[in-house]
Amino acid sequence: MAKSKFEYVRSFETDDTCLRNCYIVVRLDGRNFHKFAEQHQFAKPNDDRALGLMSRSARSVMEELEDITIAYGQSDEFSFVFKRTTTWFKRRASKLMTHVASQFSSSYVFYWKEFFGEQPLLYPPGFDGRVVLYPTNHNLRDYLSWRQADCHINNLYNTVFWTLIQKGGLTTTQAEDRLKGTLASDKNEILFSEFDTNYNNESAVHRKGTTLIWEKRNETVSKRIKRPNEEEQQVPVTRSRRKVEAYYCDIIGDQFWEEHPDVLEDDT
Amino acid sequence: MAKSKFEYVRSFETDDTCLRNCYIVVRLDGRNFHKFAEQHQFAKPNDDRALGLMSRSARSVMEELEDITIAYGQSDEFSFVFKRTTTWFKRRASKLMTHVASQFSSSYVFYWKEFFGEQPLLYPPGFDGRVVLYPTNHNLRDYLSWRQADCHINNLYNTVFWTLIQKGGLTTTQAEDRLKGTLASDKNEILFSEFDTNYNNESAVHRKGTTLIWEKRNETVSKRIKRPNEEEQQVPVTRSRRKVEAYYCDIIGDQFWEEHPDVLEDDT
Amino acid sequence: MAKSKFEYVRSFETDDTCLRNCYIVVRLDGRNFHKFAEQHQFAKPNDDRALGLMSRSARSVMEELEDITIAYGQSDEFSFVFKRTTTWFKRRASKLMTHVASQFSSSYVFYWKEFFGEQPLLYPPGFDGRVVLYPTNHNLRDYLSWRQADCHINNLYNTVFWTLIQKGGLTTTQAEDRLKGTLASDKNEILFSEFDTNYNNESAVHRKGTTLIWEKRNETVSKRIKRPNEEEQQVPVTRSRRKVEAYYCDIIGDQFWEEHPDVLEDDT
Amino acid sequence: MAKSKFEYVRSFETDDTCLRNCYIVVRLDGRNFHKFAEQHQFAKPNDDRALGLMSRSARSVMEELEDITIAYGQSDEFSFVFKRTTTWFKRRASKLMTHVASQFSSSYVFYWKEFFGEQPLLYPPGFDGRVVLYPTNHNLRDYLSWRQADCHINNLYNTVFWTLIQKGGLTTTQAEDRLKGTLASDKNEILFSEFDTNYNNESAVHRKGTTLIWEKRNETVSKRIKRPNEEEQQVPVTRSRRKVEAYYCDIIGDQFWEEHPDVLEDDT
Repeated sequence: MAKSKFEYVRSFETDDTCLRNCYIVVRLDGRNFHKFAEQHQFAKPNDDRALGLMSRSARSVMEELEDITIAYGQSDEFSFVFKRTTTWFKRRASKLMTHVASQFSSSYVFYWKEFFGEQPLLYPPGFDGRVVLYPTNHNLRDYLSWRQADCHINNLYNTVFWTLIQKGGLTTTQAEDRLKGTLASDKNEILFSEFDTNYNNESAVHRKGTTLIWEKRNETVSKRIKRPNEEEQQVPVTRSRRKVEAYYCDIIGDQFWEEHPDVLEDDT
Repeated sequence: MAKSKFEYVRSFETDDTCLRNCYIVVRLDGRNFHKFAEQHQFAKPNDDRALGLMSRSARSVMEELEDITIAYGQSDEFSFVFKRTTTWFKRRASKLMTHVASQFSSSYVFYWKEFFGEQPLLYPPGFDGRVVLYPTNHNLRDYLSWRQADCHINNLYNTVFWTLIQKGGLTTTQAEDRLKGTLASDKNEILFSEFDTNYNNESAVHRKGTTLIWEKRNETVSKRIKRPNEEEQQVPVTRSRRKVEAYYCDIIGDQFWEEHPDVLEDDT
Repeated sequence: MAKSKFEYVRSFETDDTCLRNCYIVVRLDGRNFHKFAEQHQFAKPNDDRALGLMSRSARSVMEELEDITIAYGQSDEFSFVFKRTTTWFKRRASKLMTHVASQFSSSYVFYWKEFFGEQPLLYPPGFDGRVVLYPTNHNLRDYLSWRQADCHINNLYNTVFWTLIQKGGLTTTQAEDRLKGTLASDKNEILFSEFDTNYNNESAVHRKGTTLIWEKRNETVSKRIKRPNEEEQQVPVTRSRRKVEAYYCDIIGDQFWEEHPDVLEDDT
Repeated sequence: MAKSKFEYVRSFETDDTCLRNCYIVVRLDGRNFHKFAEQHQFAKPNDDRALGLMSRSARSVMEELEDITIAYGQSDEFSFVFKRTTTWFKRRASKLMTHVASQFSSSYVFYWKEFFGEQPLLYPPGFDGRVVLYPTNHNLRDYLSWRQADCHINNLYNTVFWTLIQKGGLTTTQAEDRLKGTLASDKNEILFSEFDTNYNNESAVHRKGTTLIWEKRNETVSKRIKRPNEEEQQVPVTRSRRKVEAYYCDIIGDQFWEEHPDVLEDDT
């Protein structure tokens, strides 16, 4: 079989190795999720089942790709940060982003039932992705701050918008007109004075998005031990285990980073 | 909200537009599918349920991304060829490959039951991908020939290997030893003289893999028509519809390409 | 010496191999040549010494890098086309473009005196470059046509502009105003009716730019030969030699390409 | 003129913008400089005219491209470091490296006579270049240390090698054999015990290479001033001017960097 005759086509592949010593961020975005949300009757402004499923899928990606040091998600997007020294897939951008996109998407369908119960998934959803590199901790934190600021801006808007409709009885067009040109403070005021709602008491997962990091947890398991001349017995054994934990807190300020110093590596 | 303060991080994104006037190939490969196949009791040497699911998922990708002009799959891999003039996602490599990887993966889980019935999917599978560009029809056909030659070589080996075990009673080690250094002709001869099997009569989908292309089909549907002063009636209407069709044939020679002249564009 | 401790920095280099089977074009442009031309009193609208020096430098590049199959230059720019199968510098874009830029620039200074005689070069000039890939002969010819069309447009404009000033006595502002909004036909007409000049009779090198290709020439050299029992004698020997030849003709139409069929390779 | 018909070819250009917030290093290497050195009778092991010309050319590059913060050269190579926040040429790698290669090469020919006097330059020399990015100060310093370590290793070898030949009367083969397998300490010992030479007293420019940085210098110039009711007079005026200064010192340790804190920017 003339295999060798065709094998030259491999030389058309190009190298897309990510620059060393930079954080590698893969961000996924849902494709046509506006329509997907409608067709699956997502609650407005936030559907906790859908957000839970996004986080569950992200956790599945992290457990598969352990060099992801932190992930941040909101709405229909999720960002995954590979540590700057990772050598997974030899740092090849195409491999990293397709594997993340693939694992996330298959998980989304696989875990659908856990969050939506008997409500059927109507068709297989799609996500697209990209890779961005950040050379310093400062740049990386600014990236994550950018996404969380985006979450805040959108969620505040959506919260007021849907409150005006659901509780205030406005049409979508009326609600849009009402909010045109308003500042954050105006929106807070509408919620507070008209609907007796303090935005800061709204659910943290909606206001802050979801941050996933690895944490060491001590677990106590019982182990059977048989010592010579003794009867077999159960003894408690403490093991340290790495687990993905979720946070719904501010990651723009310093506190989160001071409390979790292992997430970032030094700029060396 | 200091959104603008962080927004500079967008400028770290790089442009990965694919060179114009080249075919864009996205190839997906299953991750750890050796283990996945074992855990899901795939039949050896080929599992028709698994191959059917791969094709079904590939079809789902093509229906989602209509500028894919041809796709070719075998074993746990599938290649998707975007036409050379496509402007999907502005030809951005990252968008193209992640969307293909995502749509394929979510489809794989979504359609699992259609092919595996009550046998449960144990965990969400992963696929990784890459993009390769081919400047000419000649290069593209050589790429597809390379994959089909690979299919042939692997399938012939696997067919003899598993026949030696399943019908010949050998262990895997014995079968490996038996095949070490054999040529294609030797393998054909083992099948023929010892197991009365003519390899060329084996299933085409196993020997040739699966080729998916778009075809125009005329469909006759009945339509209700109500003309003035007449009763409403059903009339047959013929429509031309584009549909993904599967072929299990040689694509190395010229015949397939002569019979489907629309798959490739001219080298201009 | 702790060499190894630092050597890891090599891994930060990235691969910029050009896609196989594409023409590789390196185009150079003079930096601040408007000012350079003024400071060195270039004749207007064209300075034949400067154009000659550009061509001489381009020839020097071609003789150094023999896989350049054709070069085209006009004004202060020159494009070099590497054959699509070249393996010079392993097709690394950075090596190809820096070597061309370097060789061209050192040649420009080296050969200055041949064209400008005793007029001194006031400072070392700079050129910048870029690499562009073209997958097909059609695309490559369109690239060269683009540059020659650019030459035509600029040269026609400059010819009329400077004629209005030099022969018509206009100021630069008056000449600009006069030409605002004129078509090519208007410009031809101004030259013809006001200055008795037929643009088509202007110098071809100005109207068409300079095209350099390799040509085989037969050379007759005399060689000393000493045959047994004969006296040593001089005999004429014909050798085929590859030489860079310059053309000042249309390269948009087919004639040039039909007369020089070896310049392009087939689209295979 | 059908300009627009061809202009589509511009869309084949690809974007090669360098990742933000990284140092951009352009390194040039002489092409075939072994032969070039022989043909121009360079002194062995170091030719001070040639080294001076390299530095002069590098200075010319820095004065042209002011965002180069530091340059380091040895033998026939020179590295130029653009500050991490530079926006020259919109950080396009191809523009940066070709301009550096071009300016360096034209300068090399232009300033030849200043260093080689009446000895003619036989042909225009070539240099090739590359771009490498470094995300942190640590990485950049390691890059420069790597080059200076390379300088040390080569110069120690060459110094002993040519001493064995020039003073010890060995042939090149004998000298090679003598040095095979020797460590740095062995080479120092040969110089010291056999040729009464302390390597550390050798010329710093040979042992350490040349480091160019920008420095502010106060200059006193005399200026003519005419005050009312006074006669015109010359007064001394002090101005601060940025100038390229050369150092021939260790840049691996911290001292150089502590003494010139402005060369690097913080890792932010």
